[in-house]
Amino acid sequence: MKTIGIIGGMGPMATVDLMQKIILATDAQEDQEHIPILVDNNTRIPDRTAAILGAGPSPVPELLKSAQRLTAAGADFLIMGCNTAHYFLPEFEPELTVPLLNMVTLTAEYCQAQGLKKVALLASAGTCRTGLYQKALAAVGVAVLQPEGAQEQAIHGMIYDGVKAGNPHYDAAPAQQVLRELQAQGAEAFVLGCTEMPVAVAMYHLQGHFIDATQVLAEASVRYAGAKVKHV
Amino acid sequence: MKTIGIIGGMGPMATVDLMQKIILATDAQEDQEHIPILVDNNTRIPDRTAAILGAGPSPVPELLKSAQRLTAAGADFLIMGCNTAHYFLPEFEPELTVPLLNMVTLTAEYCQAQGLKKVALLASAGTCRTGLYQKALAAVGVAVLQPEGAQEQAIHGMIYDGVKAGNPHYDAAPAQQVLRELQAQGAEAFVLGCTEMPVAVAMYHLQGHFIDATQVLAEASVRYAGAKVKHV
Repeated sequence: MKTIGIIGGMGPMATVDLMQKIILATDAQEDQEHIPILVDNNTRIPDRTAAILGAGPSPVPELLKSAQRLTAAGADFLIMGCNTAHYFLPEFEPELTVPLLNMVTLTAEYCQAQGLKKVALLASAGTCRTGLYQKALAAVGVAVLQPEGAQEQAIHGMIYDGVKAGNPHYDAAPAQQVLRELQAQGAEAFVLGCTEMPVAVAMYHLQGHFIDATQVLAEASVRYAGAKVKHV
Repeated sequence: MKTIGIIGGMGPMATVDLMQKIILATDAQEDQEHIPILVDNNTRIPDRTAAILGAGPSPVPELLKSAQRLTAAGADFLIMGCNTAHYFLPEFEPELTVPLLNMVTLTAEYCQAQGLKKVALLASAGTCRTGLYQKALAAVGVAVLQPEGAQEQAIHGMIYDGVKAGNPHYDAAPAQQVLRELQAQGAEAFVLGCTEMPVAVAMYHLQGHFIDATQVLAEASVRYAGAKVKHV
């Protein structure tokens, strides 16, 4: 089996979530049948959104250091659980000596393989503005809706005042209403394109057909490593 | 801050649990305030209990490989979430070039610091038979009770037929009765000395004063790394 290298720390809990999803998605009966994983929880990587907005240093040097550390330690391929970090991939991918599985591209391809024609993107404003998912989905012929104006504020509020604030009592009814509106506009599924959104779905019991980019990446990593995916 | 190196894969989910406990125990407001962690989820490490019973190869060569990989990648100190693996520490500790925080010793010292005179050890039969906790607790003057005969079978049954079998409906009443008996014999607290026991406590709502060795190790690691512990 190949060894997975996780460029992590963006954030630390999202890194734990990705690692856990890989382990739970692996069809293994005992420790020794699981996939070797190296994790670099590199908390020295500067804030990605700040860098995109020109309000902070580039994360590229630290992203590259993590990639090199993991490769030197034996990683056969790399992954990143942070959607926004993929914005910087073109800047450091040419320096990599092993493949990096692209979560955004994989998720777009997954939507295409599911036969979806139109999806809605649920993500923080930062991730939406990078246009990462919009481009990847367009490249495979899947149309994308995204929350606009008051809709965007409802989703944004749930992420910041609900999930990030750790508030289980946040009123997510306006966000659920946004999902119904997007469905009425033809969205067949919702792409959870930032790491807070799967948490929001679980915490506030949101209803809909959700595509969790972290889960798509975890399952793709299991297959690429040479193990079998366990469907739960 | 120092970088933590986790010798992991024993098992993979216990590794995730240790990493998560470190992150949740760190007093940090943003990603960049968290501790850098390197994880080697080394699933090539052979079964520890089998090795102790003389029924399988020694895990020492792979444990040492992990230690060396983590140290080369920049770990300033090492930890292991697997209690049983500590049995082999004397065989490879002399080869280490950075310190390894000993979960068993730290847990014994924690019991002493809490002013406990007598505790009961709850662990798999394998971990109990190594005598690791008994020796470490004796060294700091804390007396140890452990389940015997039918008591041991009740605890063992809960670990194997309950937790390891993933059965949330397992009847843990006999195990809870064992805890009451140990309390009646003078146990002031229960040391959770194998990674399944904290899961059992949560899953079957066991009642008692529990000392989770993984949590003790996580908090000691946060302090040793130079961060502040967040008490929850």
